[in-house]
Amino acid sequence: MATVNDRHATAFAPAGVGNAAVGFDLIGHALDTNNSDGTPLGDSVSVHCTDAAHVEITAITGLDIPLPHAAQENTAGRAVLAYQRALGLTHGFSLRIHKGIPLGSGLGGSAASAVAAVVAANAACGSPLTLAELYPFALEGECAASGAKHGDNVGPQLLGGLCFTNAERCISLPVPSGLTAVVVHPDFVLETKIARAALAVPFQISEFVAQSDKLAGFLIALYENDHSLLRQSLADVLVEPKRAPLIPGFYAVKQAALEAGAIGASISGAGPSVFAWFCDRESAAKAQFAMQAAFEGTGLTTTSYIAPVAGRGARVLPGEI
Amino acid sequence: MATVNDRHATAFAPAGVGNAAVGFDLIGHALDTNNSDGTPLGDSVSVHCTDAAHVEITAITGLDIPLPHAAQENTAGRAVLAYQRALGLTHGFSLRIHKGIPLGSGLGGSAASAVAAVVAANAACGSPLTLAELYPFALEGECAASGAKHGDNVGPQLLGGLCFTNAERCISLPVPSGLTAVVVHPDFVLETKIARAALAVPFQISEFVAQSDKLAGFLIALYENDHSLLRQSLADVLVEPKRAPLIPGFYAVKQAALEAGAIGASISGAGPSVFAWFCDRESAAKAQFAMQAAFEGTGLTTTSYIAPVAGRGARVLPGEI
Repeated sequence: MATVNDRHATAFAPAGVGNAAVGFDLIGHALDTNNSDGTPLGDSVSVHCTDAAHVEITAITGLDIPLPHAAQENTAGRAVLAYQRALGLTHGFSLRIHKGIPLGSGLGGSAASAVAAVVAANAACGSPLTLAELYPFALEGECAASGAKHGDNVGPQLLGGLCFTNAERCISLPVPSGLTAVVVHPDFVLETKIARAALAVPFQISEFVAQSDKLAGFLIALYENDHSLLRQSLADVLVEPKRAPLIPGFYAVKQAALEAGAIGASISGAGPSVFAWFCDRESAAKAQFAMQAAFEGTGLTTTSYIAPVAGRGARVLPGEI
Repeated sequence: MATVNDRHATAFAPAGVGNAAVGFDLIGHALDTNNSDGTPLGDSVSVHCTDAAHVEITAITGLDIPLPHAAQENTAGRAVLAYQRALGLTHGFSLRIHKGIPLGSGLGGSAASAVAAVVAANAACGSPLTLAELYPFALEGECAASGAKHGDNVGPQLLGGLCFTNAERCISLPVPSGLTAVVVHPDFVLETKIARAALAVPFQISEFVAQSDKLAGFLIALYENDHSLLRQSLADVLVEPKRAPLIPGFYAVKQAALEAGAIGASISGAGPSVFAWFCDRESAAKAQFAMQAAFEGTGLTTTSYIAPVAGRGARVLPGEI
């Protein structure tokens, strides 16, 4: 007879583009792609069920920076604790985490571990919940890093594609066919707390209206499949001006993207990565090099990625890490 | 042979609910209904083409308060001037305006005259433009009152229904079947400039995120026909708290609406009118009296209106005023 200790699973969650220019803390999309060496851009977590009731993290690999091993302080650990509590499980979990997303890159690294962990834990338990039902636990996990329930990374990294999220729900948004994202990651860390501090300034109601115009136009464009309106709307006139000075070369990279035909370009998550959307993969591939060149003009080395905006979210993997 | 002086037309534009809680300066809906005496709640404008090239206003009726007769300073006059200029017309127009919406009520009175005037002028010219093509001229006209291009009244009062608007365009939004608005107008004037001054305060980014959550949820709910999400989203957590103190009894009226089953309730335009949305006309009709009673508890006399959110916009009328 199988015991608790025989039950295990591994899951992967891709990177993500938070905020998506128009939806600060609310809208994001998956970035399901590979590094140039063929390794996937995302985090993997192996989970074993254990007799002991607690959640323990036995290994964190893939990063030079130390991350908390205490379950409550680790995004993966806290997500699994929330799952365990909600399901009233009497057994525990042992986690091994492999980080495939640089921390402080604006690519959803802390969310990816939370998502992969809870997807793996659910699979190890025989998948009693659907992926969508795992959203609140992954969101609770991500809180360990951000201190607040922002689902703009968690939602799309769990369900894939472009999502609107809040503390209660995650809704998949329609994505025009062919839409492709380019993301360029300059090789330096921008701490989220510094990026957040740049927003601790007073805003005017007129700034709010200007950004709401973009947000509303963006959502209408998606539902109406209106490329012209999407091009007018994919912009951040509220947060980007405050954070751009923290990213050397930001405006040059954005301009390179727009000159190469981008629908829009802005900061991915809290930065320093920069993303742009293109109508198709071909134009995205051409623009990728111009965007990298613009960043490298400031002396930074960069890595770039290309992926469909409607990319895949988390999934269970065969084998273990 | 017909001369320029034989060409004339009359048009009507209904009242409107600006802001619609979630879309400050951006979203509104038509309020096409009658007063209790059977007269329509809206403005009518009769326009005659004239040999003289200028635009003149020969009469303004329906209001005790004097309004500017100089075309450039009157919303109807400025709208027709913009239309005349855009079409390169060499003849002029003579306007007679009948105001059927109280000024300073938050029901789109200044926009209604602009809309009715340009619709009548276009009809008098043989309707070379569609209603939708008249949007920029009506918007320009409304500027004479507000000093800025906010289309949240002009758009729906022109095209009907619920609209997203900005300086460039007006887009009709899908409205769930049966959706009905109740509007209660307390008998006092709240000057728009005072209502705007209440917003000349610093806002935090967190307030922006909370309201963006409502705006995005609202638009998604309309396109997905999701009543539950609409009920969570039809709210103003940004502007309403600043303006509510200017409207005696506001929170009592809002509470009366919500207790009577409203989807949501907030301030109509710059106030002091209060609106609420209901799933159907029957529940709206019941709530109407509770909302009025709550306002009248503060000693104010009130008038209330009920109309479909997807109500009609402007139209050409037979005869003249």
